[in-house]
Amino acid sequence: MTNNYMAVVEYDGTNYSGFQKQLGGVNTIQGQLEKVLSKILNEVINIKYAGRTDAGVHATYQVINFNTIKDLDIYRTKWSINCLLPEDIIIREIKKVSSSFDARRDAALREYSYFVVNKDYQSVFLKKYSILVNKKLNIKAMRKAAKMFVGVKDFASFCSPECLKSNTVRKIFKFTIKKTRDDLIIFKITANSFLYNMVRIIVGTVLEVGIEQKEVSSIREALKKRDRNLAGKIAPAKGLFLTRVEYLR
Amino acid sequence: MTNNYMAVVEYDGTNYSGFQKQLGGVNTIQGQLEKVLSKILNEVINIKYAGRTDAGVHATYQVINFNTIKDLDIYRTKWSINCLLPEDIIIREIKKVSSSFDARRDAALREYSYFVVNKDYQSVFLKKYSILVNKKLNIKAMRKAAKMFVGVKDFASFCSPECLKSNTVRKIFKFTIKKTRDDLIIFKITANSFLYNMVRIIVGTVLEVGIEQKEVSSIREALKKRDRNLAGKIAPAKGLFLTRVEYLR
Repeated sequence: MTNNYMAVVEYDGTNYSGFQKQLGGVNTIQGQLEKVLSKILNEVINIKYAGRTDAGVHATYQVINFNTIKDLDIYRTKWSINCLLPEDIIIREIKKVSSSFDARRDAALREYSYFVVNKDYQSVFLKKYSILVNKKLNIKAMRKAAKMFVGVKDFASFCSPECLKSNTVRKIFKFTIKKTRDDLIIFKITANSFLYNMVRIIVGTVLEVGIEQKEVSSIREALKKRDRNLAGKIAPAKGLFLTRVEYLR
Repeated sequence: MTNNYMAVVEYDGTNYSGFQKQLGGVNTIQGQLEKVLSKILNEVINIKYAGRTDAGVHATYQVINFNTIKDLDIYRTKWSINCLLPEDIIIREIKKVSSSFDARRDAALREYSYFVVNKDYQSVFLKKYSILVNKKLNIKAMRKAAKMFVGVKDFASFCSPECLKSNTVRKIFKFTIKKTRDDLIIFKITANSFLYNMVRIIVGTVLEVGIEQKEVSSIREALKKRDRNLAGKIAPAKGLFLTRVEYLR
């Protein structure tokens, strides 16, 4: 009989080739987590995770789960893991869950946030975590554009070509765009799940509406035609964060 | 006849030995700024600045001014300076000011902010910009403590010994402590000016009240007695930011 544990992980993705483990000594978040967990638990640990994040993408709230034959002292285990992890990855919490819990399959909602600095210079504190857009952005048009994505839609035009092999229908629950007094623009998108590169292509498209290079109406067209060429350019990875995952149970 | 320019500077102080220029090849913010300005303007530039920040202290809003015989194209000059500055220092704005303007002497108000993460782990994104306090903090007691510092007081107990050579009376206008939903505690202190290490010693003292190692009433005592030993430990530099400077004109 094994025990199932879930953990919430935060990481700065700047120096990683994404979350997912890869062959051939590539530095990934999953690789680091499995290495440390296997070492501490002294057995081979394989983790499942809620959202695959690309190279350079960050997370304040990634959820993972793993099975082990051990019965863990939660507090000490968390402390040991955090001591061994590199300084850009940390376990926020860890807890025992039912044996059926699966961080990916059971996730009912995922939230991604994207940060854009809209000034004529990039803040030294935000440069690794946001992109700079120094053209004036039409926020009103961007919010109209954001609305067009909400609901159950076919997002075939808003994903990398490889996603076309499977079902491209997703449900976006909410898509908000906030502007702070410091000219930081924060996109927040929640959906049941996302296609490969979907958030970054949606943000790139909305930014093209913001600089008035694309019409709001072009989004309806792009959603209908299932053609990646009708969407905007993909926004850079560094502005993207996985910020929330919710489970029904 | 020379021209006087003021500029607003943001910097990550992590890798610097403080703002103020020092002898012997030490890496300082002032040193970097003067080197770049002198190179671009092709004359020796000496800057004045609103607040001397210690090694490891950051700023989102430091104000400087400098004189030059040149008449600057503001936009191009700002761009050139930012191209040459290291990536942890940036000029936010630059403008021509009256010949009498002095960034230090004329500053009527300075605001410092201090960041404390009050959890059982440190965020990977905040570790260079905040300190971790994992003991429970009594915020109510800390706010009472903060109030005791507001007004015109003699801060001799709340500065490094070297400040005792001159007048140690300062006026604190406001001292607030905010706690976010993410357990980030933000101290904001504004005063006409500050003594050497004053903000960090005040924050350290208030944190000792927070963990109930010091009584609120001990602060009245410390303010009265002019004795550094009655105040708390100095809080680490990395949590401190110079965040605002105001001028009357």
